[in-house]
Amino acid sequence: MKIALLSIGNELLSGNTINSNAAWIANELTTIGCEIENQITVQDKEESIVSGLDFCLLLKPTYLIITGGLGPTDDDITMAVLLKFLKIESEFDSDYWDQLKKRFNRSGLSITDSNKNQALKPKFGSIIPNPKGSARGLKLITKETTIIALPGVPLEMKSMINEFVKPQIIKLIKTRIYSKTLRTTGIPESSLFDMIKNQDEQNSNSIGYYPSAYGVDIRISNNRKEKLNNFADHLYKILGDNIYGEDKIRIEEVIVKTAIDKKKTIAVAESCTGGLIGNRITNVANSSIVFKGSAVTYSNQSKVDILGIEKICLKEFGAVSKQTAKQMAENVKKLFGTTYGISVTGISGPGGGTKDKPIGLTYIGLAKLNETSVSRFVFGQDREINKLRTSQAALNMLRKTLINE
Amino acid sequence: MKIALLSIGNELLSGNTINSNAAWIANELTTIGCEIENQITVQDKEESIVSGLDFCLLLKPTYLIITGGLGPTDDDITMAVLLKFLKIESEFDSDYWDQLKKRFNRSGLSITDSNKNQALKPKFGSIIPNPKGSARGLKLITKETTIIALPGVPLEMKSMINEFVKPQIIKLIKTRIYSKTLRTTGIPESSLFDMIKNQDEQNSNSIGYYPSAYGVDIRISNNRKEKLNNFADHLYKILGDNIYGEDKIRIEEVIVKTAIDKKKTIAVAESCTGGLIGNRITNVANSSIVFKGSAVTYSNQSKVDILGIEKICLKEFGAVSKQTAKQMAENVKKLFGTTYGISVTGISGPGGGTKDKPIGLTYIGLAKLNETSVSRFVFGQDREINKLRTSQAALNMLRKTLINE
Repeated sequence: MKIALLSIGNELLSGNTINSNAAWIANELTTIGCEIENQITVQDKEESIVSGLDFCLLLKPTYLIITGGLGPTDDDITMAVLLKFLKIESEFDSDYWDQLKKRFNRSGLSITDSNKNQALKPKFGSIIPNPKGSARGLKLITKETTIIALPGVPLEMKSMINEFVKPQIIKLIKTRIYSKTLRTTGIPESSLFDMIKNQDEQNSNSIGYYPSAYGVDIRISNNRKEKLNNFADHLYKILGDNIYGEDKIRIEEVIVKTAIDKKKTIAVAESCTGGLIGNRITNVANSSIVFKGSAVTYSNQSKVDILGIEKICLKEFGAVSKQTAKQMAENVKKLFGTTYGISVTGISGPGGGTKDKPIGLTYIGLAKLNETSVSRFVFGQDREINKLRTSQAALNMLRKTLINE
Repeated sequence: MKIALLSIGNELLSGNTINSNAAWIANELTTIGCEIENQITVQDKEESIVSGLDFCLLLKPTYLIITGGLGPTDDDITMAVLLKFLKIESEFDSDYWDQLKKRFNRSGLSITDSNKNQALKPKFGSIIPNPKGSARGLKLITKETTIIALPGVPLEMKSMINEFVKPQIIKLIKTRIYSKTLRTTGIPESSLFDMIKNQDEQNSNSIGYYPSAYGVDIRISNNRKEKLNNFADHLYKILGDNIYGEDKIRIEEVIVKTAIDKKKTIAVAESCTGGLIGNRITNVANSSIVFKGSAVTYSNQSKVDILGIEKICLKEFGAVSKQTAKQMAENVKKLFGTTYGISVTGISGPGGGTKDKPIGLTYIGLAKLNETSVSRFVFGQDREINKLRTSQAALNMLRKTLINE
């Protein structure tokens, strides 16, 4: 099914707001088998909106989804322009106006006349309820295209797509497409590609690779669910525990869940990441059950004072060394009394690199009951990306240990 | 000057990639006085690109800026389609091919025939050099519109816009628009608006408010630089140190720079933020000069063991209390031997809230030589946003102290 997207709003064309709504809708609808023909962003002026409508409808998409310009202020003209364009009259919906008044009262807000345009409804066509706000959506049917107009507030738009728009579209899709994303980390894209290519001749899935600082996501799509699952199962056999989860799950969520299930606790000694690993773990609700804390020892002195790293170790091998990473992991585990101690020490850049110890050099340690392992990595030149990749590699070492125990 | 933007690439229409390029270009060009007429995203198919070109050129923009589809692979067809559309022939640029071969050799990579299309150039029109990659840009002039085509890789596109495209456009702009963003934090948008409204009658600047979890940015634009500066000076008088910087500077950059200048050092005791504050500070290069580390004490036991918080204080007042925040700030300052100790303790949610201590309740402490202050905040319901707002409020307390000493 072909879909066109029309985004309305000056803030999108001044660059003050990134159009993440369009990407979100595209992702939701592509996943169920739609094809997004094109996406247009126009200013909130009548002639701009009309030119966008003309262009989108020319391609005869089954659905045209419009976002933005349904609020209560002067520049919210989407409904008026759309109804004029389609020659549909509007009428005042006094039932909804009463509801709105009650809702404002409950929140202790006073309703103004400028909210009245939110109580308009088309004489032909239907209203899409907004469970999270006051701007309702519209569904207007033309000869070839169903036009859906939704508010641009992400939270409201998303709930209206999920509750009202997606269910309608799914019913109409002739060949439903199923898809699944397997999230991997630790294997470069080119190696993954070499491991996977020519492995799927019998299922003819469509396969996409999406690399980022967190790893490579592999997205598989097929109109036959069992063929998709066959190949996903096959990938689990080839890639094993390099797959950390499916779809939108984050590695820190896998860790918190697994550690809770297995009753394990975690402490971190961070140098180059400065607190990022603890920050990521504590983004997960209930992480306090398993995460006891971090010692962010950014200076050598604090490594000695707080973590008890031997001065001679720092002097002989340096703060960025296998030996220091090992002591940091072991000592932070002891300090917090946890099952595991993870440590990271590295040179994030842009300064501090030498010939022997280049920017990007990082050691990650993991201490468990009777054993400590340290891995060496060389990441890139960019400070923030090095920190992200370090945190991901450390969380991945912890995840692999957790799931195998 | 009117500008149209055309983005080419299936990954943008499947929602796998958010079109941040378009927002970046829009922001750069709006800032110097351009108006973005519209922005279209099309698939990398010939007929889609042609329909996008038709639509954009119909509005006769002075510039049409195209991104994407100039790489070496099969789906990179932008140049071929564009030249066909404008009826311009291409020729092989053997000088550039020699350069490319040398560049690949130096990086230890082997060049393949698929790179040959990157050495094509138009017979009429000019080439835009790519300082960061191998895909060069194009500049093609039609009767009403100058068409610029650039690669979609953000790093490459940005350097080409900054070095080659923006300087050309600035020369052509008749009424150059100047703009400045004043970044504030700690005052709600509505209060800011009340403080500022009716203050700028003589300069007639255009003023925009952009709220986020980090605070509210105020963007002022004017075609007369002195009027812009007059009003900016006036805002500094009204808002004082609630403005933490201009344009794209981050509060953590202000802190690191000021602390280096004033030879002050920093340590942090983090509970609910889990390491976020240290992470943000250490995103800044050279932060190691002033940031000594954090104690991320997520459990009560670690607050006692590492920070020496009195058990009776935790028992009597709780971990989320003024008293605990005070001890955390003072003790982390002592532990790391720094000029300042900052502490945060709060209830991020989604669990853990009570009637007396609701989700979002947060105490932030700041210990300096002979004095410790603690502030109380109540943020919202969302865990990650609460963490962000807490980190911003803590960094802001630190910044205000730093600049006033």
